Amino acid sequence: MDLSVTNDLLENLMRGDIRSLARAITLVENRSPDGLELLRRLFPQTGRSRIIGITGSPGAGKSSLVDRLAALYRKQNQSLAIIAIDPSSPFTGGAVLGDRIRMNALATDPGVFIRSMATRGHLGGLAVATADVVSVLDAASRDPILVETVGVGQDEIDIVKLADVSVVVLVPGMGDDIQALKAGIMEIGDVFVINKCDRPGVEKMEHAIQTLLSLAHRPDGWVPPIIKTVAIEDRGTEELAETIQRTYEQFQTGEQRLQKLRAAARQRLLGLLQERLVRKAMDTAFPNDAMDRIVDQIAQRESDPYSIVEDLVRRARFEA
Amino acid sequence: MDLSVTNDLLENLMRGDIRSLARAITLVENRSPDGLELLRRLFPQTGRSRIIGITGSPGAGKSSLVDRLAALYRKQNQSLAIIAIDPSSPFTGGAVLGDRIRMNALATDPGVFIRSMATRGHLGGLAVATADVVSVLDAASRDPILVETVGVGQDEIDIVKLADVSVVVLVPGMGDDIQALKAGIMEIGDVFVINKCDRPGVEKMEHAIQTLLSLAHRPDGWVPPIIKTVAIEDRGTEELAETIQRTYEQFQTGEQRLQKLRAAARQRLLGLLQERLVRKAMDTAFPNDAMDRIVDQIAQRESDPYSIVEDLVRRARFEA
Repeated sequence: MDLSVTNDLLENLMRGDIRSLARAITLVENRSPDGLELLRRLFPQTGRSRIIGITGSPGAGKSSLVDRLAALYRKQNQSLAIIAIDPSSPFTGGAVLGDRIRMNALATDPGVFIRSMATRGHLGGLAVATADVVSVLDAASRDPILVETVGVGQDEIDIVKLADVSVVVLVPGMGDDIQALKAGIMEIGDVFVINKCDRPGVEKMEHAIQTLLSLAHRPDGWVPPIIKTVAIEDRGTEELAETIQRTYEQFQTGEQRLQKLRAAARQRLLGLLQERLVRKAMDTAFPNDAMDRIVDQIAQRESDPYSIVEDLVRRARFEA
Repeated sequence: MDLSVTNDLLENLMRGDIRSLARAITLVENRSPDGLELLRRLFPQTGRSRIIGITGSPGAGKSSLVDRLAALYRKQNQSLAIIAIDPSSPFTGGAVLGDRIRMNALATDPGVFIRSMATRGHLGGLAVATADVVSVLDAASRDPILVETVGVGQDEIDIVKLADVSVVVLVPGMGDDIQALKAGIMEIGDVFVINKCDRPGVEKMEHAIQTLLSLAHRPDGWVPPIIKTVAIEDRGTEELAETIQRTYEQFQTGEQRLQKLRAAARQRLLGLLQERLVRKAMDTAFPNDAMDRIVDQIAQRESDPYSIVEDLVRRARFEA
């Protein structure tokens, strides 16, 4: 790509052209040099959109909730984006939730840009790749940007932590198993949702959340609100949207936002460095099929990875 | 640590001394130079123990199941280890499941070595840190080594993929939500467990698993068995242990094992390189408080991470 094409692409996506937006995201996802150049150029234009992270266990109804929120934002004439992080198949390498069926009205509405991201193959970590896609959407003035993750793993937590507001979705019945609640997601939620509130056990669940929150002692003193929804019946959607907005505005003032921006910047810097530097080291130290041979030697215990890495790191120099 | 101390520690842990084992794991977890030296020395002695990964959603009863399996292995006079990967608190940095109560008989039995690992702060990724701890236990002849993860995130999937046999634990009722099953864990299971089989919906769940497995097309042709358990009543534990053993033996023959060892070796090499090389780059390029200043500039959009990383990577040289 020559510079004028990058210029055009950047200009078109910032104008709101959807095909340019899709193309830019693909470049960024592929980690091509053009994608990185584009990111470098659009980065100063970012940091304006509201980024809403939505997470919770599989089966909590996150997708339905996101779809309802999206429909509501569309009624308010907001031009938004949804990024759905899909756990990938380790066999096929593809996303297994890619076939997920979105509400028809959303899928054909140019005001809702939907993108699935697979979790595999990001050397610098999924959180960095996601942050980069968010930056493209941010530069394209998509606002809000909803980032939906399945699961409660470390990568997912890192992604949600990049959001301006993190929403944790739970369902009644999980309250029976307090461990399930404590599993990592409890302390990242700025807002909690009890979805599927037509099921029994809502009060027990609410009590369990309150108890755990009272133990958490957030250093910022924020007390996360708990919202009750039935996403498939569109109940509670407006209250949730209002609560998210109020939380966002609250966090804008004060030290909170700068803290989050700093954490995001640090993660990004480290992740990018892991991705780019390790690739250069590998290409330099193990050209062609040398890598396969070394992997074989390690697998057979004829050689050990610690000595190999130690040697490579010892040889690394960073010229002024 | 001078060489003779490393020698003693290595010798003592390979003799089965528990305090030396605990000390070695702490060194390795802290990523100290001594820990890496120890790993380098013991690595040739590894690859012998059976490594069993156990994963599933929070609340599936994995811990109870692991405790039952451990009790059974103890009856068979096997000297085993349990590594429980605990999601960490992003606020406190500590493990939130660390307070989990193990069955009393296990906690005081020197034949069961139990270790919790927090998910945070591993620059090279949690999977690499876990693999290193597994190597120490392997060299200490702990066999089997049960690695239990909470959640279905990418890190957790990477960990379970390092195991010789991966067990995915599900519960009845999840079958209502097919998406929950598809979320990443479906294709990594060599053995499936439906735990809490005293609850309604067991057949529906079994059918859902079979349907999804029939779509998965494992390249090795393996058809994962489905075992039904009620862990809290110790029902199905023996059948599960036998199935794990049969699966392990099946995988030992054939190409399967070498494939897994190669994947593990590659992941280890990359993870170690990420950890050690990025640290050296950071220390060299951003000494003292330069890092904080740069993070601040990125957070304020006065500078962009892509240009900074690009510049650093360009300057990297690997001397012969």
